[in-house]
Amino acid sequence: MERMKKQIEFLMEIDKVKNIFRQTWLADGNRKENDAEHSWHLAIAAFLLKEYAVEEVDLLKVIIMVLIHDLVEIDAGDTYAYDDEGAKTKRAREEAAADRIFGLLPSDQGVYFRELWEEFEAYESADAKYAHLLDNFQPLLLNHESGGKSWVEHDVKKSQIYKRNAKVEETSPEVWEWMKQVVDRHIEMGQIRDE
Amino acid sequence: MERMKKQIEFLMEIDKVKNIFRQTWLADGNRKENDAEHSWHLAIAAFLLKEYAVEEVDLLKVIIMVLIHDLVEIDAGDTYAYDDEGAKTKRAREEAAADRIFGLLPSDQGVYFRELWEEFEAYESADAKYAHLLDNFQPLLLNHESGGKSWVEHDVKKSQIYKRNAKVEETSPEVWEWMKQVVDRHIEMGQIRDE
Repeated sequence: MERMKKQIEFLMEIDKVKNIFRQTWLADGNRKENDAEHSWHLAIAAFLLKEYAVEEVDLLKVIIMVLIHDLVEIDAGDTYAYDDEGAKTKRAREEAAADRIFGLLPSDQGVYFRELWEEFEAYESADAKYAHLLDNFQPLLLNHESGGKSWVEHDVKKSQIYKRNAKVEETSPEVWEWMKQVVDRHIEMGQIRDE
Repeated sequence: MERMKKQIEFLMEIDKVKNIFRQTWLADGNRKENDAEHSWHLAIAAFLLKEYAVEEVDLLKVIIMVLIHDLVEIDAGDTYAYDDEGAKTKRAREEAAADRIFGLLPSDQGVYFRELWEEFEAYESADAKYAHLLDNFQPLLLNHESGGKSWVEHDVKKSQIYKRNAKVEETSPEVWEWMKQVVDRHIEMGQIRDE
């Protein structure tokens, strides 16, 4: 039962990600979203939007990838997409977190999760690019629905959004088209700066 | 873009499940868990515990099943596991919800989700039995970690837990063994009634 004990310990540990809050507001604008909710939303979007990915993706792998991609934030905290200071130390903080958290699992499963997380972070494979598309699309959807609250709070510029989403067009022109339209609409409404 | 519009509308609608709260407390005992967090937790457990399922399961299908199994609660609300009054009207409330919510999607995807949900509810296939095992195991894990708070609040009896989990042993003897040990420990601590 040593193996199951490790799996259960990991499942208990990751409960903490339900208390890691992001900068994105829920669609109703009443509170910010946590990492578990965000990851759940991405996993369903992974299934629904797969047809728009230019390259063939391994859906099961992408789903596991998005379900676990923010677990390192249990130790490292959430670094906001446009926080340049936080970004400098993000990698080191998250690597230490990955060592500890994935290290709780039996080694085969821990190594697999670690590899998926590294692949996500590298942002090069078709699966990682699709996972990142989802990770960028979903907060945009919530920001759109909640009246751009998070963009206004952080005084976000169009150029920051375009830089962060630089690989989305090659991953899915259709999804990028929708995202661009949303950005334009919120520029018109004065919620994103046109710079 | 009519198809994508429907998919995005669905993704916005299901954001509401982040505000459907269950009777289970988070492991830290500070607040109750919502359906999105619960479904996320089940999906990761589906991957990790697959090796204990007696029958072969389709992991991707089980993961999608657990990710969407509580969406009907957006309209129907959460019915507590041991709420006999609520149970009488649950099916009718949830069917109407399934019609509306899955009906937002393009028909191929809506029909697929509806079929997965019906398969889950029927609780007969190997995939559905494994999904239910996860759906029963995860709150037990959280109740265990949070000091049996939810069991005490609802004055839960051992016989109710055993009835609800009647198919767990045939789905996975190892997981059932662990669950039984947890129940016994909380009977000793006076948090589950030995009836």
